[in-house]
Amino acid sequence: MKALVYNGPGRKAVEDRPVPQIKDATDAIVKITKTTICGTDLHILKGDVATCSPGRILGHEGIGVVDAVGAGVTTFKPGDRVLISCISACGRCEYCRRGMYSHCTTGGWILGNEIDGTQAEYVRIPHADTSLYRIPDGVEEDALVMLSDILPTGFECGVLNGKVAPGSTIAIVGAGPIGLAALLTAQFYSPAEIIMLDPDSNRLEVAKRFGATKSVNATGAKAAEAVMQLTGGRGVDTAIEAVGVPASFLTCEDIIAPGGTIANVGVHGVKVDLHLEKLWSQNISITTRLVDTVTTPMLLKTVAAHKIDPTKLITHRFKLDKILDAYDTFGRAAETRALKVIIEA
Amino acid sequence: MKALVYNGPGRKAVEDRPVPQIKDATDAIVKITKTTICGTDLHILKGDVATCSPGRILGHEGIGVVDAVGAGVTTFKPGDRVLISCISACGRCEYCRRGMYSHCTTGGWILGNEIDGTQAEYVRIPHADTSLYRIPDGVEEDALVMLSDILPTGFECGVLNGKVAPGSTIAIVGAGPIGLAALLTAQFYSPAEIIMLDPDSNRLEVAKRFGATKSVNATGAKAAEAVMQLTGGRGVDTAIEAVGVPASFLTCEDIIAPGGTIANVGVHGVKVDLHLEKLWSQNISITTRLVDTVTTPMLLKTVAAHKIDPTKLITHRFKLDKILDAYDTFGRAAETRALKVIIEA
Amino acid sequence: MKALVYNGPGRKAVEDRPVPQIKDATDAIVKITKTTICGTDLHILKGDVATCSPGRILGHEGIGVVDAVGAGVTTFKPGDRVLISCISACGRCEYCRRGMYSHCTTGGWILGNEIDGTQAEYVRIPHADTSLYRIPDGVEEDALVMLSDILPTGFECGVLNGKVAPGSTIAIVGAGPIGLAALLTAQFYSPAEIIMLDPDSNRLEVAKRFGATKSVNATGAKAAEAVMQLTGGRGVDTAIEAVGVPASFLTCEDIIAPGGTIANVGVHGVKVDLHLEKLWSQNISITTRLVDTVTTPMLLKTVAAHKIDPTKLITHRFKLDKILDAYDTFGRAAETRALKVIIEA
Amino acid sequence: MKALVYNGPGRKAVEDRPVPQIKDATDAIVKITKTTICGTDLHILKGDVATCSPGRILGHEGIGVVDAVGAGVTTFKPGDRVLISCISACGRCEYCRRGMYSHCTTGGWILGNEIDGTQAEYVRIPHADTSLYRIPDGVEEDALVMLSDILPTGFECGVLNGKVAPGSTIAIVGAGPIGLAALLTAQFYSPAEIIMLDPDSNRLEVAKRFGATKSVNATGAKAAEAVMQLTGGRGVDTAIEAVGVPASFLTCEDIIAPGGTIANVGVHGVKVDLHLEKLWSQNISITTRLVDTVTTPMLLKTVAAHKIDPTKLITHRFKLDKILDAYDTFGRAAETRALKVIIEA
Repeated sequence: MKALVYNGPGRKAVEDRPVPQIKDATDAIVKITKTTICGTDLHILKGDVATCSPGRILGHEGIGVVDAVGAGVTTFKPGDRVLISCISACGRCEYCRRGMYSHCTTGGWILGNEIDGTQAEYVRIPHADTSLYRIPDGVEEDALVMLSDILPTGFECGVLNGKVAPGSTIAIVGAGPIGLAALLTAQFYSPAEIIMLDPDSNRLEVAKRFGATKSVNATGAKAAEAVMQLTGGRGVDTAIEAVGVPASFLTCEDIIAPGGTIANVGVHGVKVDLHLEKLWSQNISITTRLVDTVTTPMLLKTVAAHKIDPTKLITHRFKLDKILDAYDTFGRAAETRALKVIIEA
Repeated sequence: MKALVYNGPGRKAVEDRPVPQIKDATDAIVKITKTTICGTDLHILKGDVATCSPGRILGHEGIGVVDAVGAGVTTFKPGDRVLISCISACGRCEYCRRGMYSHCTTGGWILGNEIDGTQAEYVRIPHADTSLYRIPDGVEEDALVMLSDILPTGFECGVLNGKVAPGSTIAIVGAGPIGLAALLTAQFYSPAEIIMLDPDSNRLEVAKRFGATKSVNATGAKAAEAVMQLTGGRGVDTAIEAVGVPASFLTCEDIIAPGGTIANVGVHGVKVDLHLEKLWSQNISITTRLVDTVTTPMLLKTVAAHKIDPTKLITHRFKLDKILDAYDTFGRAAETRALKVIIEA
Repeated sequence: MKALVYNGPGRKAVEDRPVPQIKDATDAIVKITKTTICGTDLHILKGDVATCSPGRILGHEGIGVVDAVGAGVTTFKPGDRVLISCISACGRCEYCRRGMYSHCTTGGWILGNEIDGTQAEYVRIPHADTSLYRIPDGVEEDALVMLSDILPTGFECGVLNGKVAPGSTIAIVGAGPIGLAALLTAQFYSPAEIIMLDPDSNRLEVAKRFGATKSVNATGAKAAEAVMQLTGGRGVDTAIEAVGVPASFLTCEDIIAPGGTIANVGVHGVKVDLHLEKLWSQNISITTRLVDTVTTPMLLKTVAAHKIDPTKLITHRFKLDKILDAYDTFGRAAETRALKVIIEA
Repeated sequence: MKALVYNGPGRKAVEDRPVPQIKDATDAIVKITKTTICGTDLHILKGDVATCSPGRILGHEGIGVVDAVGAGVTTFKPGDRVLISCISACGRCEYCRRGMYSHCTTGGWILGNEIDGTQAEYVRIPHADTSLYRIPDGVEEDALVMLSDILPTGFECGVLNGKVAPGSTIAIVGAGPIGLAALLTAQFYSPAEIIMLDPDSNRLEVAKRFGATKSVNATGAKAAEAVMQLTGGRGVDTAIEAVGVPASFLTCEDIIAPGGTIANVGVHGVKVDLHLEKLWSQNISITTRLVDTVTTPMLLKTVAAHKIDPTKLITHRFKLDKILDAYDTFGRAAETRALKVIIEA
């Protein structure tokens, strides 16, 4: 089968690989219908993700059709249309029982990282019963590709951790795909104000169309000043960090109101300064989270009920044999205005 | 009346001052029966607290008897025995209505800081109705002095914010008075393990007597290693920072288990390093809080029901005219083994 | 001044009364701009509310302008435009501190019940600082009249107590004004399905326009069957009882899914059957609540941000001197299709 | 093998049965070391449990050693010492993912009910990975038998649902084994008062030894009056119903304070009167729950840490071949003062 393979920093190729087989009783083999590319895939290609070895098939998102299941799989059978979660979860370990699938002792984010992923014709999914989700009838498939990772990540790490509430004022620092996913799902809770911060005015326009009530086209101290002005000097109840660099985290520290929450979504490569000399008395919370995808069933319901339209995030479309073009388009997002790309079998 | 006055960095004196009078309709004048000294008073004396001007009567803890009340006070009358909260709260502003008395727009921590305090024969208490608490019959007065600040601080900032739960494993970094207050109140929730960290072996022995299940006589990397060993490499569910320096906060970062909470109690003077490059994916929370004293009614009940004995924290006793000796004893705590001192009228 | 007075069961009149005066330091006198009639006023007129004596001026809703304040009032001054809460709260007692204003030991629902109310030219408001809310600039006054009672009641007793959540399925039994207020505010949380039950097809049509996704024009066993069919035999996550009679509570018992919540809003005059022989193992919650109006500040923000339009509930408009006509129209709601009527000074 | 078999209402016998075999890939066969008898077993023997057919081996509690596992079991292997949960949970269905194991679509309370149970030499456990718990080293085995059902039931249905909190006042109606289990686990949260109600003075004495602060030797209106007197007319924050009859539920309605919670634990056979005409405005919650056993890992930690001693509940001991004597002793509890009996292999 065709597959997109990581061959070490800066090197990727479409290669021919054997179709994966059932290894454990709890495995399923899924024939991929649609997949996509994540910002994390670009991180891997830069050599930033130590757990991902050369030779790995990338991809941790997608939908498909079950092709085969192991003896221990009870929930799915060949022919079932399924959504693949970016997180593999055994459902049995201490972390899974607490709903922290991200830290499953034999799973977590392993797909397209420690084991072969979804940017291929077929993929092996471990712990299939608790890592796949049946696709409801009548739901648009493109929308569901957004439910593998980006929507639960924006929602769980940003919105739920950030305790977004009716009438509250929130800021989202970073209007890339993940910031926009937080923006879309934040509206489940009817905040009064959603202030979007980004240096890219195109992305801010997209954010306005997606429901942001205000936007700040700046970074650093100027961005913080602008937010303080927009909130009458009060700051925001929730600040969602959706970039992953010290400057944007610092902006969150500068704009958070007493009693507020900074919800970190970004993947950070270096430490940040935490100004406890200012914040120790401000009754704030800071949260971090690798997505658990425990809200996938709920998100499926909101998509089925048309409470949210994740297809808004999709800007481009490619066939699997053109996946290198897809990477090129997605990699030059500022220029191509790409948000999420769909790659079809 | 006699009062302990801050006269600028390094300078304090017992001075003669006029008895305070009602200024606002919501004020009460309280005749002090017992007061105490807080670590924060030492900070003020070092000149570290910019909001506290020379000439200020110090002290934000104590019990007493209501001497006079303003026209708008409905809950108390002269002769009532009362506990004074370290936090003055109007009960009316947006923050008070949310239970964040610490950020009351016309109150917060002002006593012995922005207005004259309790280390005197009399004190004026603004917003008396919501800043004083009636003393229940049959409760030991000494115990109640601990309820002005140290017990609610350890409990709210450390235990509640730290989500201490039955069966959980917690660490308290720092076994000074505030760390010990967290230790005492953590036991309301029956954690399985309470690991106490401090470089002072006397304080660790006290901690063991107060209910710590394990102790670590170390700081820095060695302390973190010891905790990881005691927890089988898993780390702790709750890490309570009760010192207020970067090294002890770093210890908390090093020992927190996935899904855990770092509850900051310490007053910090400088920024700390937050290692988001490691913690971004660990599903942790970090909380800060200036005590709100919203749990004072509950703490009064637990003291009345003998579920906790705060008098354990009291090591020394002085008359008000010997308050300079009290400061001397409290200031050389490592040597005198002082925890909390009682100063009687 | 003119006032609508309750003169015993079945008897009401517009009478001339003296303008109220400040009695306590915490009082305010408010000149009424707009008020409305509540279903509870009709209950009083039937003689069903024992706490309300003949001679009482009715009304517990409205907006106005502060005319005078007592010595202990710090938040408001004459000339301030204010929203009057139906619940008077001292902000000081044990219940107020817990956010249970409804059970304030010197307040609660007393307005137009135990003390004279708002269907008059002026009203005395006790505990003014914590029972009035400043009107934000630029917000439509009519909308705010709905924030005195009906909106917080639907929201707190129905939506919050009912734990309405994104993606969930809820049913509201009763499409009168209070059921419709629950319907409007439930949408703050983006439930997937809102099923409205009422025997009046006009009200169901209104409900559809207000956001209900499905409706059931039936009562009793047939209503329950219809809901079970609409939910694939699963039942609903939240059932909001907005009528106040045994039959509608029973419907809630019959349609609640395992793990669900029955949130009672209705005012009940007789006991109901609770089928614990069926429900003991169903992991459900049942909640009751007299509105606390603790969410008024939040609701003000959502109205100011246009997240909700409470003016939808307003069907008729009268001058104060025509208030008997207003009562007549409101009392024959099935015929007049009245929901809420505005009575202007 | 020997097994205690239900042969229809009023008829039980020790019979010889074949050792169970693995049927599904997720099964385990466990050799029983210790088991016990539950009040529910007596209900079955009265013919009150329709789901349990004649010929069924009874018992849903116990500990043992894994004898064999199916192909899909990954957590356990033969020789592992395990605790058997009374609830079988697949860990995969919608309810299991929400932590509602009691409503697992292919599990729940089936053991010794819809499938053969633990009062035998061997038992087949479906969904073994999520229905068994490894026994920690150094923990007393007798204590763990109490963790199959009675302790998690008292804790989850009574204490957690009842929101028992530090400083609160709680009442437990019924001092039988399940009421006492609630009493033991309520103390995890340090309530100020625990009032125990029962007509049996021996059980009340036991309750006092187990930590009750007050007791009421009465039922009905007299019991409610006594509780109101003990609480200064205020009532209790939490009322735990641990009997399962209308009279004891009514007592809970009569003693619940505004804002309180009635947590039902008892198994009810008939409906009860819910006095909404009184309770609609009291801001109370009523909860029901079939135990989910989601707190078993936590309870294991508290037992291992000696925060609770469940062996206090054990009054008698029998060998499996004397299980009919054990039933006789347990069935005449008022006379024999039996609480829980241990039946050893």
